[in-house]
Amino acid sequence: MVNFQFNSGDIVKFRLAREEIEARVLESPDNSVVLVKLNSGYNIGIPKENILDCVIVEKFKEESKKEIIPISKNKPSIGLIVTGGTIASKLDPKTGSAKPLTDVSEFAKFYPRLFEKVNVKKLSIPFMILSENMSSEHWITIAEHAKEMLNDSEIQGVIITHGSDTLHYTSSALSFFLRDLKKPVVLTFSQRSIDRASSDAEMNLDCAVTMALSNCAEVMIVGHATENDDYCFALRGTKVRKMHTSKRNTFKAINCSPIAKVWPDKIEFLEKYNARSEGLTKLDASFNEKVALLKFYPGQDSSILDYYLVQGYKGIIIEMSGLGHVAVGEVKYSWESALKRAIKQGLIVCAVPQTIYGRLNSKVYSSGRALEEIGVIFLEDMLPETAFVKLSWVLGHKNWKNLVREKMLENIVGEFNPLLNE
Amino acid sequence: MVNFQFNSGDIVKFRLAREEIEARVLESPDNSVVLVKLNSGYNIGIPKENILDCVIVEKFKEESKKEIIPISKNKPSIGLIVTGGTIASKLDPKTGSAKPLTDVSEFAKFYPRLFEKVNVKKLSIPFMILSENMSSEHWITIAEHAKEMLNDSEIQGVIITHGSDTLHYTSSALSFFLRDLKKPVVLTFSQRSIDRASSDAEMNLDCAVTMALSNCAEVMIVGHATENDDYCFALRGTKVRKMHTSKRNTFKAINCSPIAKVWPDKIEFLEKYNARSEGLTKLDASFNEKVALLKFYPGQDSSILDYYLVQGYKGIIIEMSGLGHVAVGEVKYSWESALKRAIKQGLIVCAVPQTIYGRLNSKVYSSGRALEEIGVIFLEDMLPETAFVKLSWVLGHKNWKNLVREKMLENIVGEFNPLLNE
Repeated sequence: MVNFQFNSGDIVKFRLAREEIEARVLESPDNSVVLVKLNSGYNIGIPKENILDCVIVEKFKEESKKEIIPISKNKPSIGLIVTGGTIASKLDPKTGSAKPLTDVSEFAKFYPRLFEKVNVKKLSIPFMILSENMSSEHWITIAEHAKEMLNDSEIQGVIITHGSDTLHYTSSALSFFLRDLKKPVVLTFSQRSIDRASSDAEMNLDCAVTMALSNCAEVMIVGHATENDDYCFALRGTKVRKMHTSKRNTFKAINCSPIAKVWPDKIEFLEKYNARSEGLTKLDASFNEKVALLKFYPGQDSSILDYYLVQGYKGIIIEMSGLGHVAVGEVKYSWESALKRAIKQGLIVCAVPQTIYGRLNSKVYSSGRALEEIGVIFLEDMLPETAFVKLSWVLGHKNWKNLVREKMLENIVGEFNPLLNE
Repeated sequence: MVNFQFNSGDIVKFRLAREEIEARVLESPDNSVVLVKLNSGYNIGIPKENILDCVIVEKFKEESKKEIIPISKNKPSIGLIVTGGTIASKLDPKTGSAKPLTDVSEFAKFYPRLFEKVNVKKLSIPFMILSENMSSEHWITIAEHAKEMLNDSEIQGVIITHGSDTLHYTSSALSFFLRDLKKPVVLTFSQRSIDRASSDAEMNLDCAVTMALSNCAEVMIVGHATENDDYCFALRGTKVRKMHTSKRNTFKAINCSPIAKVWPDKIEFLEKYNARSEGLTKLDASFNEKVALLKFYPGQDSSILDYYLVQGYKGIIIEMSGLGHVAVGEVKYSWESALKRAIKQGLIVCAVPQTIYGRLNSKVYSSGRALEEIGVIFLEDMLPETAFVKLSWVLGHKNWKNLVREKMLENIVGEFNPLLNE
């Protein structure tokens, strides 16, 4: 008779007919099945009838809070903004899912190295949310906190921890919102929570510190460069995208090189960058929420444009196929007349590549030429996500009303790569 | 005084102050500027005042038509379907853009090797269009032609030449439409037209022939594997995506390995595949056009779902962030109630990864669990484009009305990679 007297959260070794499994027990919805979280992070259910024996290896205990390491005058100072996401989550042993950390002391407990290496002179937690729940108001709040920290003369750089899902939208938004940037702004994340063996959180944060203290006055995402714990990349905030659901090296530089390879104790720059300088950073967080991002697909009904017009939208980014195409001409699902009508009514329509990689070229095929003639703005090699943020930002400026095309095609914070030949 | 007596189409050598340029002259919209197409494929305008001298190197002449090479009994037979796109286009010397070939004899003139290597026993040109202008009716027509050719006992395989923009939608559609496939169906394309020095057309077509005569009874895309003319990949029709606007190795296997490396004269298989066998291929081209593909972005208004409901849509594929998330819970732009309402009204809602790479997992975060509870179908590692085609196909079957979830999660033609661990 097996003794099942463990609780959820405990680490237990189970003996089965053909193998032994040591894993953390989760709360099971089914009393006849023991649910456990494997070291790989995956959950499996073991029918109780298959368990020959079990031994508790480690009882679960909620750890007590530790105090933040106090500020020391001998260490460089940074600003830290904690916004939620996996990097600020821990395993909930009852459900096996990730649960947000609740306060600074818990964050400090999980990341003691950060607080040992630098003085966290200013720390703010404006909200603790998963990044899929963010929208422009969160980006504006983060930018406000960052600006205040950047303009503190003792602070050398700002680190922002953030969920990874929409991190590249936030990095784009901060790139446009923070004008005259003089210091590093480093966004980092983790794909696996800190209490998992394969967590990328600590190395990402270590490398974020390296970049925050560096000479590089750019908005960057710092994270694993490879699937191993080799080093991180610092990626330009406007040229970066989450490209894998779960891999730790999920963020990729698109249509350019990473700015740098980063280790906890050194940097190897791969690209030109704006150097650190004196002066104040300004905030320009104008944002028009009536901008949409739309992906074209074969047979798509162009009347979706009328929906956006009726809803009062002012701009739309269309992820077009190939070099910048949608159906045009004498075909059943042609977009030509709907686009003409929408643009005539004042809708700003911009094209970006749905291939993700590469540069648009409106000159090669008849579809591209037709779209350009109608007034579609071809955004070269700009990422869809960056283009969405940029158009919202540009249309947020009432005094740029007659400059929208010009501003969209101006390379403001490296959102275009003029060096890319293909 | 420079003599400008060349015509558009001519290849002319221009002497400028600091360099010489030899290029094909295009029709110029501005009489003071000579527009030319460089060997790189890019067009430049040269102000006439900067031209010190010019010499015609080669007069342009429209070549005369040649006859198709006749069928020989000593060569293997294939079926060929020509549908348009760059691979069936040539440079229009007047505009510098790509212009569709008009008929079979012109196609044969550009690709003599194809007609030398095999008997093109059946050839059809159902339409000559750029692939961004295609929709499901084109896919159905291609499938009908392919099925007829496949069921001709002398034909060993079918080659389909096609524009590259939406080729991966067509390959998905054919994968689902052609049931009990017994022979190879090979889609190929080119990124640069055949009359450009860097054209990939001929090698892609050579390798397509290799695969069409092979033992691999799958729907595949065959195209350049690298940026050089090394070899091609044969890529599974449901696990492939155009990933670059202009590079020749634009098609990538997503979340799996290519089926094979292919050369004009050999194959190296990298993956398991269905072997060629006896029997007839059936056509099942049911298709419901009331399916949408939608990409989620931060701050997106969920009332777009109501638009689709009002328009009578039956299904929607949502490209979600990370492991399969949209905004849910107590946030300003929550999708929770709109999704609940839509699903209650019968809309089938499926989740796919907007990262393109990786597999969804609804269990890790609260957002995923909430969406699964509402009834969203998580499509694992399926590509958005494949999912769009598959849902349209599944909803095209009235007798599957109560089997939609089951069918969407069934691995019918390799649209899931069960081997992928992350």
